Amino acid sequence: MGVAVRALAFDVFGTLVDWRTGVARAFAAAGVEGDPAELADDWRSRYAPALDDVNNGRRSWSTLDDIHLATLDELLADRGVRGLDEGTRRELVQSWHRLDPWPDVREGLELLRRTHVTATLSNGHVALLVDLARHGDLRFDAILSAELAGAFKPAPETYRTAARLLGVAPHELMLVAAHPSDLAGARAAGLRTAFVHRPDEHGPGSPPRSDPDADVSADSLPELAQRLAG
Amino acid sequence: MGVAVRALAFDVFGTLVDWRTGVARAFAAAGVEGDPAELADDWRSRYAPALDDVNNGRRSWSTLDDIHLATLDELLADRGVRGLDEGTRRELVQSWHRLDPWPDVREGLELLRRTHVTATLSNGHVALLVDLARHGDLRFDAILSAELAGAFKPAPETYRTAARLLGVAPHELMLVAAHPSDLAGARAAGLRTAFVHRPDEHGPGSPPRSDPDADVSADSLPELAQRLAG
Repeated sequence: MGVAVRALAFDVFGTLVDWRTGVARAFAAAGVEGDPAELADDWRSRYAPALDDVNNGRRSWSTLDDIHLATLDELLADRGVRGLDEGTRRELVQSWHRLDPWPDVREGLELLRRTHVTATLSNGHVALLVDLARHGDLRFDAILSAELAGAFKPAPETYRTAARLLGVAPHELMLVAAHPSDLAGARAAGLRTAFVHRPDEHGPGSPPRSDPDADVSADSLPELAQRLAG
Repeated sequence: MGVAVRALAFDVFGTLVDWRTGVARAFAAAGVEGDPAELADDWRSRYAPALDDVNNGRRSWSTLDDIHLATLDELLADRGVRGLDEGTRRELVQSWHRLDPWPDVREGLELLRRTHVTATLSNGHVALLVDLARHGDLRFDAILSAELAGAFKPAPETYRTAARLLGVAPHELMLVAAHPSDLAGARAAGLRTAFVHRPDEHGPGSPPRSDPDADVSADSLPELAQRLAG
């Protein structure tokens, strides 16, 4: 791969943590009518358009908590769900702070940290990422976020801000993500890319994803560690 | 102490790591004429005025590496030291990335992380703090820095930016530091403060420090953990 990769930046939602199971559990606990997993999918589908609105200046900078609260209200209104009290709505937003990591993540991060500087690079704000890392006992060298760039991925400044803060050139930083659109954004900003396959992100039977343009692909973080060492 | 402290922000140079011993070792290795510890003290004494210049707009924003390189050149010129090549000067600047922690720090941070969110809050830039944390195997929940506020401590926005990024109110964040001026800056920004006694920071026989205005004082991080639990 030419020049050595010095640091790894990890996408979080879907790549490291299983948002669908955790958020579905929260919908079930809140007693919202409907299939909990389908509600989780619906909520998640409203996320990218809201972030686009921020990047395009149609919505002012917001944390993911604010965006989740706004998109939850839209979801509930669209489905005619009324009377969900403020506390329950806030509890649903908080469920994004307590998502479990995929089973390989904790060990995989430890392996990768032996050879590379590791950081999150998520559209989640710093406080949310701190909660997720503490919840899953995930160790990173730094918590980096779109919040520090004031722009959400896939805006190029988000990736470039991460490289600058880590003191490396963009081509010395590799984004690790399960989403081809995120990886394409990283490449456009000059980063290297690693695709991690997360077939269960959207539940069983989802269409398989791949990224032929990624520098490396793996089915788990330990496998990624092997490939980067090899 | 009234409302609970939810997060701890740690000053790094002098509070967590022993800059004097590490930098003196680097001066000795570089073969610079003079007492290595005294050279380290001289270099460190040029730090606060340079940061003041940035906060007052007389110098543009710089990382600590840039500031260390500039103040090293001033020190060498003032002492009539000539002919120190670029590589050796850069190696001296890099010595600030490899400072050993005080002996209680690793264990103390682990204890404190059980009950509180922990973060650095240093005038060092993020990449420098990542190197120090990796060098000393120090675990934090987040690496926060003056770099993220664009202003050096004791400017109030540096402390307030840390609270905002951690998602807590200023009075829910406690600065842990060995320096009364840093603690006074934190209090002026609305933070709680913990004074940690580091009698060896400036070498043997230094005048003792204390901070009667601090919410709590301790001789080590494990002692601080006990006091915060008690």
